[in-house]
Amino acid sequence: MPEFKDIQAAYKRIAPHIHRTVVMTNKSINTLVGASIYFKCENLQKTGSFKIRGASNAVFSLNDDELKKGVVTHSSGNHGAALACAAGWRNIACYVVTPQNTSGFKKNAIINYGARVSYSDALLPSRIAQTEKIIKETGATLIHPYDNEKIIAGAGTSALELIDEVKELDYLFVPVGGGGSISGCAITAKNMLTGIKVIGAEPQLADDAFQSFKTGTLQPQREPRTVADGLRTALCDRTFNIVRKYVDDIVLVNDEQIIDAMRLIWERMKIVTETSSAVTLAAILNIKNDLKGKKVGAILSGGNVDLKEVLTLL
Amino acid sequence: MPEFKDIQAAYKRIAPHIHRTVVMTNKSINTLVGASIYFKCENLQKTGSFKIRGASNAVFSLNDDELKKGVVTHSSGNHGAALACAAGWRNIACYVVTPQNTSGFKKNAIINYGARVSYSDALLPSRIAQTEKIIKETGATLIHPYDNEKIIAGAGTSALELIDEVKELDYLFVPVGGGGSISGCAITAKNMLTGIKVIGAEPQLADDAFQSFKTGTLQPQREPRTVADGLRTALCDRTFNIVRKYVDDIVLVNDEQIIDAMRLIWERMKIVTETSSAVTLAAILNIKNDLKGKKVGAILSGGNVDLKEVLTLL
Repeated sequence: MPEFKDIQAAYKRIAPHIHRTVVMTNKSINTLVGASIYFKCENLQKTGSFKIRGASNAVFSLNDDELKKGVVTHSSGNHGAALACAAGWRNIACYVVTPQNTSGFKKNAIINYGARVSYSDALLPSRIAQTEKIIKETGATLIHPYDNEKIIAGAGTSALELIDEVKELDYLFVPVGGGGSISGCAITAKNMLTGIKVIGAEPQLADDAFQSFKTGTLQPQREPRTVADGLRTALCDRTFNIVRKYVDDIVLVNDEQIIDAMRLIWERMKIVTETSSAVTLAAILNIKNDLKGKKVGAILSGGNVDLKEVLTLL
Repeated sequence: MPEFKDIQAAYKRIAPHIHRTVVMTNKSINTLVGASIYFKCENLQKTGSFKIRGASNAVFSLNDDELKKGVVTHSSGNHGAALACAAGWRNIACYVVTPQNTSGFKKNAIINYGARVSYSDALLPSRIAQTEKIIKETGATLIHPYDNEKIIAGAGTSALELIDEVKELDYLFVPVGGGGSISGCAITAKNMLTGIKVIGAEPQLADDAFQSFKTGTLQPQREPRTVADGLRTALCDRTFNIVRKYVDDIVLVNDEQIIDAMRLIWERMKIVTETSSAVTLAAILNIKNDLKGKKVGAILSGGNVDLKEVLTLL
């Protein structure tokens, strides 16, 4: 479990390389909710998502021997692109295992950042087998998308910047997928502000974290079908332990609420966000009666969308 | 014709009320063009477009007698919403004449900012007659969308902020509709930087400014059918004279190029812009061979879109 000092160290390590993203407010959304919402715009971050924070923290923490052998991961989404980008900054090899059926849009991003992509079946065992094969052949260091201390510490720097800028917050809403982002953000928030409540925003159709949180036992993800494709992953032991310790509640949102919130962000704030980002605003709207007059932070995690694909949802 | 000192005075007048919008750069678009492009993001401006600059300059320039009687205009787009917003700041009446067939999206924005909306036929003579009727009844001051010195001076402040931030620019691209924005921006640019070239970006399907510029005589707009609905208006004598004096060239772009540029901005920059904003990037792409290695400014004029409507274009 990373400590707050690890997140501070991560920030020093990565700050020269990443954007300090803008914190946006929007009057009409504030009126709608009845609270002051501070959106941390990681959709405007390098590589289009917060994932570069963890990826660059991991890559800039490698020792000389590890650098020579490169890094490997099996994320086909934003983490894959971010790791490839960070590896490019250090001029080291990056191997990314993606399922055959990954969309061209995401695959292209990973390839454009210079990763060596190899393919597996869609199922996790096949992806893990292919990843282990690469590790055996190359000695590359596995950088797991969220079951990794450096990744969690890097992700926590988004909350660090947000709180540093806004100073006070009553609530912080963070999307929950594998739990890396909310783990880092929750450790940060609870260390920087006493009394802040950290709320996970999770799609109803991928509610493993909610189930785990409520039962106190790590529950598996069962056939996640949510439109928030970045949040179909499941908590691991590491992130579940952090969530249990630092997160105050998890709020579920259905797909219609996610899409409505995304439309609101695009039309009112004039920024492009993923479905997986819009879950935070959807969760805020869901419990807005509890938030009257409060100062509320919300992580907008990414903005990588294939417009043609997204438009079919709207 | 406003002078640069009028634009500086406008900036002092309106700066406390408007956003100093961000200047964005994007590595992948820079690579595509082979130049360094500085996007002035007026889509993130209050009311969602640069129009609040001119509208607030006009409203904050009214004398006490004029304030009592309010303001009137016959724009059904961003200028109508901006004037209503600025009038609201001073707590004065704002009358907006819109054609019956104006889309619900735009009408709602104008009404939400507190304007008293009245309706006319779609044709200009009917709109002017209705506007004159209101002036006769109320004594309200007409704030024309672009044939107005205060509007032009206000619009020029976007270029002022851009150049103040970027310091040097070889080119500045500005959308051309009625010519208010490019007039103000061109006066500003030519006064702040020697050697800068100011280029108008105009839809081929609404090319009155191009025809006027090339023939040296003000030409009428003939049935504009471009998707860039904010640019279907025509130059007036006032703006044509400024364009002739200060603008170096006008580059035409077709609707397909406008839509492609808009998609590029949404997907790469993660911001929502109108078709009428994307004309600047479309024009830059059109003459990119002339821009190699140059520093290029581009005004992104607004971001007010009805997503469902825009999505049919993509």
